[in-house]
Amino acid sequence: MNYAVIVAAGKSERMGPNVDKAFLSLGTKPVLAYSLLAYEKCQDIDGIVLVVRKDRLEAAYGLTQMFGYSKVKKIVAGGTRRQDSVANGLQQLNDEVRIVSVHDGARPCVTPAIISESIKAAKRYGSGVAAGKITDTVKVVENNVSITKTLDRSNLWTVQTPQTFKVELLRKALGVVARKRVVVTDESAAVELLGEKVRIVPVVQPNVKITTPDDLVLAATLLRL
Amino acid sequence: MNYAVIVAAGKSERMGPNVDKAFLSLGTKPVLAYSLLAYEKCQDIDGIVLVVRKDRLEAAYGLTQMFGYSKVKKIVAGGTRRQDSVANGLQQLNDEVRIVSVHDGARPCVTPAIISESIKAAKRYGSGVAAGKITDTVKVVENNVSITKTLDRSNLWTVQTPQTFKVELLRKALGVVARKRVVVTDESAAVELLGEKVRIVPVVQPNVKITTPDDLVLAATLLRL
Repeated sequence: MNYAVIVAAGKSERMGPNVDKAFLSLGTKPVLAYSLLAYEKCQDIDGIVLVVRKDRLEAAYGLTQMFGYSKVKKIVAGGTRRQDSVANGLQQLNDEVRIVSVHDGARPCVTPAIISESIKAAKRYGSGVAAGKITDTVKVVENNVSITKTLDRSNLWTVQTPQTFKVELLRKALGVVARKRVVVTDESAAVELLGEKVRIVPVVQPNVKITTPDDLVLAATLLRL
Repeated sequence: MNYAVIVAAGKSERMGPNVDKAFLSLGTKPVLAYSLLAYEKCQDIDGIVLVVRKDRLEAAYGLTQMFGYSKVKKIVAGGTRRQDSVANGLQQLNDEVRIVSVHDGARPCVTPAIISESIKAAKRYGSGVAAGKITDTVKVVENNVSITKTLDRSNLWTVQTPQTFKVELLRKALGVVARKRVVVTDESAAVELLGEKVRIVPVVQPNVKITTPDDLVLAATLLRL
């Protein structure tokens, strides 16, 4: 079986005090609803574990009821860091689940097609991570003020979510991260620490992450709301 | 005096054969018209040199006439590479021009405010280059297939245009680049080769570059067309 762990337990500091961006309105639905819908529609997904802030457990339950997302099997509270939230989600998966697709609930433009591609890659290579080639020139900037170097961008990509893995691989990776007390920015980084090569799934359409109010406008446009 | 060199002489390969993206329609105007309008409106700009493909000289002249862009003082043909086109533009500036703001004609979302800020930085520090902090995780990817490393993104920025400099500094930098036969991806890289630190001007709003048809949709939204 293939499960999703959708994480929406972040702090959203750039949106203002005590804002939970996953529950902000985007058109007629909360931001989080779009990711849930994409996973609900994806034929390769058997179930969803939703990870939210502790004080949002009821709101999240209400949301899945209201929109009838039948694949949401469990809703659990997240931890302080993304890696803690993902670990909490992983704990909910039983032994029949072989593939887990981790997704950031603040990325509403994800599509069933991207999810399926990442699952295909994970089945074949162990991992499938949504990524986009960097097209602008990348610079190393000192003190947020002065450029000191131009990087060779030809092999640079930014990664997003879905980040999909064989469950055993991600469990092992997050276990090592926890034991070594490392902080990672994404699940791929945890797997990389095992010395594994992580497979990318190229994404062409913008897969915007909602972090500022401008991003809501951008996402609404991209979703043609 | 402060001049702009607006470069729109690229090949636009990702748009299809023989497409000139600067002349594609964006709402009611060609893509290039939006950059011209922003520079026309910017009170810190005294004149504009427009660099286009040789076969677009007449079309460019017609465009500036039609929209009444009175600051466009010269229209010249570009070279094969961006650095050649910028050099052609620089040749047109007389000795009274102290600051030059190089801009990519395929970036229609530029604003008079960003142009002014980049000029202010260039007057004070020699350079002012529009830049945005990278918010996604950046990976080194091998053969466009496998992630081999996560970069520390805390000091990574992508740079765009305007890239504004003291004219003598940019002339010297492009001279060195030409003599050493180096290919640079932007003007900043040429100035960096002199050992100069280039000052960034943080840009918050998306400053999208038109490279694919999707980018046209995105730009239209951002420009609220």
